[in-house]
Amino acid sequence: MSLVEPITIRFGIVGCAEIARKVSRAINLAPNAQIAAVASRSPEKAAAFAKANNLPAEAKIYGSYEPLLDDPDIDVVYLPLPTSLHLKWATLAAQKKKHVLLEKPVAVTVAELDQILAACEANGVQFMDGTMWVHHPRTAKMREFLDDKQRFGELRTIQSCFTFAAPESFLKDDIRVKPDLDSLGALGDAGWYGVRAILWAADYHLPKTVVATPGSVTSDRGVILACGASLQWEDGKSATFHCSFLTHLTMFLTAIGTQGTLQLNDFIIPFQEHEASFSTSSRAGFDEQVTRWEPGPRQEVVGIDGVPQEVRLIEEMARLVGEIKVGGAGKVDREWGARSRKTQQVLNAVKESIEKGFVPVEIA
Amino acid sequence: MSLVEPITIRFGIVGCAEIARKVSRAINLAPNAQIAAVASRSPEKAAAFAKANNLPAEAKIYGSYEPLLDDPDIDVVYLPLPTSLHLKWATLAAQKKKHVLLEKPVAVTVAELDQILAACEANGVQFMDGTMWVHHPRTAKMREFLDDKQRFGELRTIQSCFTFAAPESFLKDDIRVKPDLDSLGALGDAGWYGVRAILWAADYHLPKTVVATPGSVTSDRGVILACGASLQWEDGKSATFHCSFLTHLTMFLTAIGTQGTLQLNDFIIPFQEHEASFSTSSRAGFDEQVTRWEPGPRQEVVGIDGVPQEVRLIEEMARLVGEIKVGGAGKVDREWGARSRKTQQVLNAVKESIEKGFVPVEIA
Repeated sequence: MSLVEPITIRFGIVGCAEIARKVSRAINLAPNAQIAAVASRSPEKAAAFAKANNLPAEAKIYGSYEPLLDDPDIDVVYLPLPTSLHLKWATLAAQKKKHVLLEKPVAVTVAELDQILAACEANGVQFMDGTMWVHHPRTAKMREFLDDKQRFGELRTIQSCFTFAAPESFLKDDIRVKPDLDSLGALGDAGWYGVRAILWAADYHLPKTVVATPGSVTSDRGVILACGASLQWEDGKSATFHCSFLTHLTMFLTAIGTQGTLQLNDFIIPFQEHEASFSTSSRAGFDEQVTRWEPGPRQEVVGIDGVPQEVRLIEEMARLVGEIKVGGAGKVDREWGARSRKTQQVLNAVKESIEKGFVPVEIA
Repeated sequence: MSLVEPITIRFGIVGCAEIARKVSRAINLAPNAQIAAVASRSPEKAAAFAKANNLPAEAKIYGSYEPLLDDPDIDVVYLPLPTSLHLKWATLAAQKKKHVLLEKPVAVTVAELDQILAACEANGVQFMDGTMWVHHPRTAKMREFLDDKQRFGELRTIQSCFTFAAPESFLKDDIRVKPDLDSLGALGDAGWYGVRAILWAADYHLPKTVVATPGSVTSDRGVILACGASLQWEDGKSATFHCSFLTHLTMFLTAIGTQGTLQLNDFIIPFQEHEASFSTSSRAGFDEQVTRWEPGPRQEVVGIDGVPQEVRLIEEMARLVGEIKVGGAGKVDREWGARSRKTQQVLNAVKESIEKGFVPVEIA
């Protein structure tokens, strides 16, 4: 019989953005996590958020961000703030020895992210970004397929897409279209997922060159509303992605190997919460008369065992923080920060390519 | 009671390429068509083809192409010859008053195709290319969706892909990798479908600019083995496609409008012969907690009523030819030639873009 008490990791939410509602539900649901505090720029807003989102009665309410960062009863801060504020608050959180769960896009530039990651490193705290789909059990099953040399072979091409038709009010007033708050716009918000999916499929090997696709759309205020790019790797692999605030909700991810193909159209948010599927095809061809596929693709269905992807993200963050609390800073997992950084590198290269007139940009 | 005899249109097959097997089966199955002759460069090869493909006993066997073109009992010639031979034989067929069913890619250049189309025009004969999927009843159902302003809105983006892993023998010896026979390679063979699908979705409105994606693969002999491109229209629409002989069999077509999305992964050859499906999504969003789609996509299934797409292609060609036989050259449908020409224009622009170092190429 174990005498070790399970550690519950205490989260503080800094900022009451829309996405914080989903994440606070996830923290409430995660068995190894609890919401210990919420901070907003006014105590009324924080209290209203706490009430609307069923925060525990003991959760503290802060009318400004810094006191939450100073609270010794908080282990992790979750930061769903506008991107341009990430540098200040994520760095400060790390300096105050809080582990950092940072919404995507993690920063405006790689240089900013490097300051955040350096602060986390210097203070021995864990960093993770808020990308949820990578924590879905489907993603692990898809990874198995991509790693299977027999079924999938060598990865050659990846194509991904995430678009949604933002309403007029969003295009006018949302944080994500304001140049001082989130200058990456659709590239940072929707493009983040496409780029992350490409890097995920490529086992986080960075491409050598990125070229933005002509025809990107930028708002009057200089914020990207729709764009795409192609990515080339040294070994001949290639990828493309497209992202937009201006067309109907659409997702797809296609990864093509020498022996197989992975396809799905709901990689970021699954069509259904309780299970998710993806299509695999291996050594496919046509029948003798070339009138049908032989073999056809397989639909693989993965249940979530009652634990949605955002809850798994919280569980994973809490698990890592628990290990650090017991084992010390040596237990920090730097891989999560490295993945965020690679995603940011590609995003920034795409932005640079757009700004320079769709020229190829080398990834350092 | 009608006393008009149904007209059976007589097809002559010129060349015994692999694809001719599928098309000869289709002619055998089409109620308004029959195979009247087959020509090869040797009578033995033509006879063997006739036997292997259950050609009617009365089908004539020719040991060279020209006598078939001179045969007064032939209405239509089907030309599955290497692309570089299309100009000579399609033009000659038209001059000899034969209607022309021409395999894709229809020509090496637009200039060549223009000569073929001019010959068809001058001789009052019908032209059609061998693209089968546009004749599938699913395509008509998909068209209804794209035309539906309520469900789909305005088309904004199209993405398509067709790749297959050609075996070593193909990459060494197939007609489609020989610069003197088919210099367009994968662009002409696989890319034809992606470009055609994009133009189909765009109601055959031509893009203004085409830019090839860096990272295309060209063989030692200068034949394209893999490539892609992005297309931009004057009204802001955009599209991308990817094609390859070097990766696993994969297809997809995604058309995104302001209100809806069409997606399918088997647009060229359906997974199954007897029915085919596609996914539609309209005014989709997420549920309150952003954990699932609401509404999710719909899978629409279309049966073929026992008539595969390639048989419908033959039926349509035979129907058009029948109308011309009765009503004269005024009945020629020029739309099919115009569609082939637009496809060829885009292919050639992509090739030009590749050759010039992935620069934008304006479509005239």
